[in-house]
Amino acid sequence: MAPTYKLYYFDVAGRGEIIRYLFAYGNQSFEDIRIPKDQWPEHKKKTPYGQLPVLEIDGQPVAQSYAIARYLAKKFNLVGKNDLEALKCDELVNTLEDLLQKGLKYFFENDPAQKEIQGKQFFDEAVPYYLEKFEAIVSKNGGYTVGSQLTWSDFSFAVTLRELENRHPGLLKPYPALSGLVEKISNLPSVKAWREKSEQKK
Amino acid sequence: MAPTYKLYYFDVAGRGEIIRYLFAYGNQSFEDIRIPKDQWPEHKKKTPYGQLPVLEIDGQPVAQSYAIARYLAKKFNLVGKNDLEALKCDELVNTLEDLLQKGLKYFFENDPAQKEIQGKQFFDEAVPYYLEKFEAIVSKNGGYTVGSQLTWSDFSFAVTLRELENRHPGLLKPYPALSGLVEKISNLPSVKAWREKSEQKK
Ligand SMILES: N[C@@H](CCC(=O)N[C@@H](CS)C(=O)NCC(=O)O)C(=O)O
Ligand SMILES: N[C@@H](CCC(=O)N[C@@H](CS)C(=O)NCC(=O)O)C(=O)O
Repeated sequence: MAPTYKLYYFDVAGRGEIIRYLFAYGNQSFEDIRIPKDQWPEHKKKTPYGQLPVLEIDGQPVAQSYAIARYLAKKFNLVGKNDLEALKCDELVNTLEDLLQKGLKYFFENDPAQKEIQGKQFFDEAVPYYLEKFEAIVSKNGGYTVGSQLTWSDFSFAVTLRELENRHPGLLKPYPALSGLVEKISNLPSVKAWREKSEQKK
Repeated sequence: MAPTYKLYYFDVAGRGEIIRYLFAYGNQSFEDIRIPKDQWPEHKKKTPYGQLPVLEIDGQPVAQSYAIARYLAKKFNLVGKNDLEALKCDELVNTLEDLLQKGLKYFFENDPAQKEIQGKQFFDEAVPYYLEKFEAIVSKNGGYTVGSQLTWSDFSFAVTLRELENRHPGLLKPYPALSGLVEKISNLPSVKAWREKSEQKK
């Protein structure tokens, strides 16, 4: 019997979205629990490490978005076709996270002088540096980040690049292969159906 | 035939050390290439994403320390005894990395006022918060971070906690189980032999 899954996150895409996408892709039902901001201070104390996402697997809570995503990816055959491809998935997911970190530094900076510096580093250096490399990879692989089939790295790229594009519209424009990947993953039939259903609830 | 491995990193422990420890543990020979600081700007251009560590596997370069470590951990049977334990390894490794990030923010801050704020957050909040939880886990598991056998999560804890202790002596003192784990891993016969050999070279 499949375990019971309860996902705790906030009512945003953020670090919960890849997990939701993977469940949708795997046609695996789960409880999509979204903690309202005003209940967070209370709920925080009950989490393993004071943050979300947390996935409860048969009642046992586990933290860390990428750890959870990789675990589900194994269940749904999304870790590549051998250990080397699994390694490439991890490499790309972590490298994209390095880029995301630089973006978050900019987006969450309040000091105007600092924000200008962070913005230069992010938009003029980091974004073109990483995205050109990623674009070349996805282009060469015919629309995939790793090998020639779907992996959880594609899901990570789809949700993270979409998030960056939402925060800064136009960011992905120079990168057709990456834009195509975001579209492809978001429109996988099961993912699309799930997105439409969860939009309706709001 | 085992592949040929070349590890590129700097002449410090840092994010290369877990990879070196794992190779030592697995009795797997590798080239331990340490780029001198003055050659780095030139070498940087040849790396996949402008940073180290990079592991060349039969000539194919791969970045990202944790991705590489997990790959070697699989080869050396250090990913736990099932998918749930592999998940717990990833959870702990990533959570420790969250703590390390806060530490690096403090250690690398140059502005004195900012450094004081970062220091308070790190030493008065983050360190006790995370280390008490980790201490309880390792204590309960009889000296292991996951399950009741060695995993790569133990290696990650050993090198990262040692690094924090080196930067701030006394940090681990209130945590006997964590201190014991650092000692245990560093003194595994093959790891110890490797450490002694690589010390001699200097
Ligand atoms: N490394 C963690 C980071 C988790 C994290 O940063 N969670 C944020 C939301 S994205 C959070 O819980 N913030 C609320 C808080 O820290 O109180 C992961 O990938 O899961
Ligand atoms: N997420 C990467 C981070 C790698 C990283 O930060 N590397 C640093 C040394 S620890 C580096 O190469 N610094 C030199 C530079 O960025 O030019 C990993 O875990 O491997």
